[in-house]
Amino acid sequence: MSVLASLDQETIDQLVQLIPDWKIDRNYLSREIKFKNFNEAWGFMSQVALIAEAMNHHPNWSNVYSTVNIRLMTHDSGGVTRLDFELALKINEALGEEKGIQQKINEINAAI
Amino acid sequence: MSVLASLDQETIDQLVQLIPDWKIDRNYLSREIKFKNFNEAWGFMSQVALIAEAMNHHPNWSNVYSTVNIRLMTHDSGGVTRLDFELALKINEALGEEKGIQQKINEINAAI
Amino acid sequence: MSVLASLDQETIDQLVQLIPDWKIDRNYLSREIKFKNFNEAWGFMSQVALIAEAMNHHPNWSNVYSTVNIRLMTHDSGGVTRLDFELALKINEALGEEKGIQQKINEINAAI
Amino acid sequence: MSVLASLDQETIDQLVQLIPDWKIDRNYLSREIKFKNFNEAWGFMSQVALIAEAMNHHPNWSNVYSTVNIRLMTHDSGGVTRLDFELALKINEALGEEKGIQQKINEINAAI
Repeated sequence: MSVLASLDQETIDQLVQLIPDWKIDRNYLSREIKFKNFNEAWGFMSQVALIAEAMNHHPNWSNVYSTVNIRLMTHDSGGVTRLDFELALKINEALGEEKGIQQKINEINAAI
Repeated sequence: MSVLASLDQETIDQLVQLIPDWKIDRNYLSREIKFKNFNEAWGFMSQVALIAEAMNHHPNWSNVYSTVNIRLMTHDSGGVTRLDFELALKINEALGEEKGIQQKINEINAAI
Repeated sequence: MSVLASLDQETIDQLVQLIPDWKIDRNYLSREIKFKNFNEAWGFMSQVALIAEAMNHHPNWSNVYSTVNIRLMTHDSGGVTRLDFELALKINEALGEEKGIQQKINEINAAI
Repeated sequence: MSVLASLDQETIDQLVQLIPDWKIDRNYLSREIKFKNFNEAWGFMSQVALIAEAMNHHPNWSNVYSTVNIRLMTHDSGGVTRLDFELALKINEALGEEKGIQQKINEINAAI
């Protein structure tokens, strides 16, 4: 796979508005999610693990009991790329917050 | 741990009415659950794995893509016991179908 | 994805010899694996879940405590295909039993 | 459950020698583990999740691809307690590095 271009700040600021509850934190697209307990946090993480492996694009993430912190960045590109936005959308979909993410993926690809 | 008494058929028939969507299938308390895809099925199974290990009481279960089949029985007792009803309730709680299962657990214990 | 051809019995009988501990059971490529306890069985299943999702090819599988039964078949093709042999090899790799499975994958593809 | 006493520095320094590859990092008992890839890291994390839930004692942990960082501390006690040493031993056991951890658990309990 060729290296993806990391996006300029203006594009990132525009695209992050498409992905509810994610923000830019230094070089990362990031979100913190609080669940009821470890059981629910772990069920969610297990879904994200499958998504990440299928995309071959993995998060920097941490967990303490019911809280999951996710930071996304494309290491080979040294910054946020469209892969990170796609993974963020799929994570929101796993949370039941997004339906039909394909349209947003198309918008992201068109904006780049 | 001493061996739990397996319940008589009358008690089982009464208690299964407390646990929506579970039925008695030969010697098992059983439920089949269909999800949207493997990702959702696996997130659920990961929650059940934690519950089962914490109870030290494990299901007989199978999965094909988006379908999960669960059969519960207490091997040491050779039949269905209150442990199986408690696990079934916790599984329904993981599905977001039950809240406050402690009252039902109390009813089960009182009926035995 | 176009539908893969299911393999004829002679090819299946030949290829199954490349995959230690798997056998043909009716229409399935199958293996039963016993672990020390549920914890080890579940760690293994979590690895297989990632592999299956990344291949978009999922097992029929069941688990009781420390035992995992896996049956592989390509539903769209109605029989065993090269996808099932590839998944079986990757499962053996996750068990630490195979290294460098690419050569065997090449042999399988050449035999078909 | 009553709050466990957090251990004094001398006891911690003594007990950490019983747990290979763990060190004291500020208020935490900590270990970083590198695996071959995300698949192996995730299989391991899935085992630790079961152990933690069964103990009702959960790690602070993070993951990036093949690396897992674990930090253990007993929040209610504000420091390292015997629960953290027990969880660390069980994690080493899940890695196949320890067998028969009961003796070491006894040594830890005797030292406190």
